[in-house]
Amino acid sequence: MSRAPSCECQEAHDEHGKRAPPLRAIEAAAAPLRNKPSLYPPVFATRVTGRSKRPLGELFGLRNFGVNYTVLEPGAISALHHRHTLQDEFIYVLEGELTLHLGSSSLRLTAGMCAGFPAGGEAHHLENQTPEPAAYLEIGDRTAGDHVSYPDDDLVAVRSGDTWVFTHRDGTPY
Amino acid sequence: MSRAPSCECQEAHDEHGKRAPPLRAIEAAAAPLRNKPSLYPPVFATRVTGRSKRPLGELFGLRNFGVNYTVLEPGAISALHHRHTLQDEFIYVLEGELTLHLGSSSLRLTAGMCAGFPAGGEAHHLENQTPEPAAYLEIGDRTAGDHVSYPDDDLVAVRSGDTWVFTHRDGTPY
Repeated sequence: MSRAPSCECQEAHDEHGKRAPPLRAIEAAAAPLRNKPSLYPPVFATRVTGRSKRPLGELFGLRNFGVNYTVLEPGAISALHHRHTLQDEFIYVLEGELTLHLGSSSLRLTAGMCAGFPAGGEAHHLENQTPEPAAYLEIGDRTAGDHVSYPDDDLVAVRSGDTWVFTHRDGTPY
Repeated sequence: MSRAPSCECQEAHDEHGKRAPPLRAIEAAAAPLRNKPSLYPPVFATRVTGRSKRPLGELFGLRNFGVNYTVLEPGAISALHHRHTLQDEFIYVLEGELTLHLGSSSLRLTAGMCAGFPAGGEAHHLENQTPEPAAYLEIGDRTAGDHVSYPDDDLVAVRSGDTWVFTHRDGTPY
């Protein structure tokens, strides 16, 4: 990655020189990594090895949508192929190249390119098919009552409060 | 700007070689410019001269939040100093340098830095105080019932359907 991982959190000072609350802005690539593992059931969680997320929105107290700075190592995928019923998603490629799998198609995205995935649209996920890491911003809202379907896997996710509950397609738990 | 303004919209082809719907991904800097003027009353609209927005989210049919690729020419500002009651906002600097005015403080943001503005937080806006254009992504949700206050101006905005209604602070129309 071309960006050094040094922290560049900035503190602002008000017009009287007093110290303001610490986090006003941050170098996205140096934000703290998500400290919890994937929420997928273990049999699927191993498939997102090589994916790391830095949750940016919650650093600033945002609640209506999430923004992550996500890095995929060579060979890693962003998620299982999936689609949401109610939540929109958007990605913007910052560094490297990513393959977007969309429905049964695929296309190559380079830095500066973006894509959006409306609720009820085609299933999608990203894959790093290059030998270099790739970084992107991912944004998703938190509309209640959302369901996620996985056309290639025996998996369903239902939004429950602030988290997700995963089951087999027939509703039995993992 | 370092990125050429040529369109790099990409078309995907499915596994049978058939042409898929045209917009699956786009070069953000080459997306269409917003074709309507600022919604501010005319006396305020002139203050955002030098600001251009390319609405990205709506290109893909997103409704729950908006994503713009926004450029500020030297001297331009992103908006009047403002705060939302219900909607969150987030920005990520792509090119150039921007001054973030937050409450009564200010700090300089460079490419790769981000900031978030939670509903009910401090008033904020960006300003390009450099001699070069600056580009950033801005994200905001569309929570109904939002109000916007402008601590430095005699202006109030209320969300009404898909647009905003602006009045003086005492409620009289412009």
